Amino acid sequence: MKENGIGLRRIIRRKRDGDLEYLPDELTIEEPLEIRVGRRSIATTMRTPGHDEELTTGFLLSEGIVRARDQIASVSVGGENRVVVDLRDGVKLRLNSIKRFGTISSSCGLCGKTNIDAIRQNFPAVRSTDIRIDIKTLLSLPETLRNAQSDFARTGGIHAAGIFTADGKLKIAREDIGRHNAVDKAVGRALLDALLPLDRHLLLVSGRASFEIIQKAVAAGIPIVAAVSAPSSLAVELARESNQTLIGFLRPPSFNIYTHVERVILDSA
Amino acid sequence: MKENGIGLRRIIRRKRDGDLEYLPDELTIEEPLEIRVGRRSIATTMRTPGHDEELTTGFLLSEGIVRARDQIASVSVGGENRVVVDLRDGVKLRLNSIKRFGTISSSCGLCGKTNIDAIRQNFPAVRSTDIRIDIKTLLSLPETLRNAQSDFARTGGIHAAGIFTADGKLKIAREDIGRHNAVDKAVGRALLDALLPLDRHLLLVSGRASFEIIQKAVAAGIPIVAAVSAPSSLAVELARESNQTLIGFLRPPSFNIYTHVERVILDSA
Repeated sequence: MKENGIGLRRIIRRKRDGDLEYLPDELTIEEPLEIRVGRRSIATTMRTPGHDEELTTGFLLSEGIVRARDQIASVSVGGENRVVVDLRDGVKLRLNSIKRFGTISSSCGLCGKTNIDAIRQNFPAVRSTDIRIDIKTLLSLPETLRNAQSDFARTGGIHAAGIFTADGKLKIAREDIGRHNAVDKAVGRALLDALLPLDRHLLLVSGRASFEIIQKAVAAGIPIVAAVSAPSSLAVELARESNQTLIGFLRPPSFNIYTHVERVILDSA
Repeated sequence: MKENGIGLRRIIRRKRDGDLEYLPDELTIEEPLEIRVGRRSIATTMRTPGHDEELTTGFLLSEGIVRARDQIASVSVGGENRVVVDLRDGVKLRLNSIKRFGTISSSCGLCGKTNIDAIRQNFPAVRSTDIRIDIKTLLSLPETLRNAQSDFARTGGIHAAGIFTADGKLKIAREDIGRHNAVDKAVGRALLDALLPLDRHLLLVSGRASFEIIQKAVAAGIPIVAAVSAPSSLAVELARESNQTLIGFLRPPSFNIYTHVERVILDSA
C-alpha cells in the first residue's frame, strides 16, 4: 500500500534543524475490543491491544457488573479483538446496569446517566484506613511509573496507570492509548489476583483525573489517587464524598492536594 | 462544606521551594450534558459547559445523524445540562445509527462497533481540493491556537480545537475538558453557520489524533488534520483512506507527516 512514494510504514519527519527525513513510523496501536458476558455483547471500546482480559475485568468492575474475583468463572480471548467473560452460576448480569449505561465505552463510564447520584449508589465510600504517604515518597512516584514504561510509550504519550503501596513500591503498571483503559487494566489485574479492595494502595495516572478515573478508583476501594495533570470539578466532588485523597499536578517538586489532606504527611519534607 | 479546615474552594499547594500554601482552587468544570432529539434522549456526555448547542450539533454530525444545516429546525437549551434538537419535517432520526451506536458518548464515537468498516460507509472520503499549506504557516498554528485560550485553560490542560484557513487564519476555536468535545464544538459552529464541507480548511487539535478525531474531521469534510501529539494506528489508516493529510507532533520547529503529504509545501521553509 503506497501513496506518493511513502509506504504505509514510512512517514516524513521535519527535524529541529529544518531537514526532512523519511522514517519508519512507530504508531500506538488502537483497535476495537468487544466485551461479551456469555453470549451477550455489552460494549466495544477502543484500546491498545494487550492485557485484554485485565481490561475487561477492570471494566466490569468499574461499571458495577462484578465486584469480586469469585463472581467470575472465566475470562478468555474469544476471537480477534474480543474477550468473553463467564460469570459464576448464580451471579446475574445486572441488566439494570447495562440498560442504564447503554453500550459502554471505557472512555465513557457515564453514558446514559445525567447526574452523579447513580454512581454514589453503586459504590460505597472508600473504607477508612490509616494509610498515609509522606511527601518524599509521593514525589518519587511519577519517575517510578515512567521508568516502568518503554521509551516509545513515554515519547508517544501513551497513558500509564500505576498501583503503588504507601511506601512507594509499584505493584502493577499498565499502559494504553486511553487513560481509562490503563486504569481498567491495572485494577483488573488486581481483581483477578483477588487483591480488592485496594484499601492500602495508591493509584497514579499519567494524565488528568476526570470523574471516571475517580469512579474506577472508588470501585477498587483505593483511598489515594494522584494525577500528573489537573482534576476536574466533578472528580474533586466525587473524591471528597468517597473519602478519597486526591492529588493533582504531581510534578516534582510540587503538587496540589484537593481532598482529604489527612493522608499526606505534610511535615515529612 | 468543610473538611480538615479546607473549604470546598481551597486546596493545598506545595510550591517548588517546598513551602505549602492554601489557595482557592480553580477547577475545570466537568458536567454531564444530555442530548435529545425531539423527545428522545440519545446520549449523555461529560463536557465543560459552554457552547452546548454547538457541541450537540457537532456530535450529531460526527455520528451521522445530521449532515447539513438545513436538516436542523432548532437547537436549544432545554433545561439544566440538556440540549434539545428538533429536526426539520421530513428528516428522520436514523434509528439505525442510534441502534448501532447504542448510547453514544462524545469520547466514544465507536461504541457498539467492532471494526471501522461502518465508518467508511457513513462518511465519504474528503473531496479533493487544491488546498495546500506551507511549512511556515503550519508551524505558526499551535501558537495561534494557544493565544486564543485563556491562561487557565493553557495551564490546566483544557483541550482546544481550531479550524484554520490554509493561510493560517483561525476561524473557530473551542475548548473542552474532552478533546473530542472541543472538536465537536468547533465543527458544530461551522455546521450551524452552514459552512460545511470545510474542504478548504485545516483542523488543529491540542492533543493526540485518535480514530475518533479523524472521524469527526471526515464528517466535516476537512482535508488537513494536525495534532500536537501522536496519532494512533487507526487514525493514520482512516486518514489515508479518507484522502486526508495527517500531521502529528506539530511542535515547532518539527512535525511528522503521516498521510497525503502532497498538501504540505515542503520546499517553503
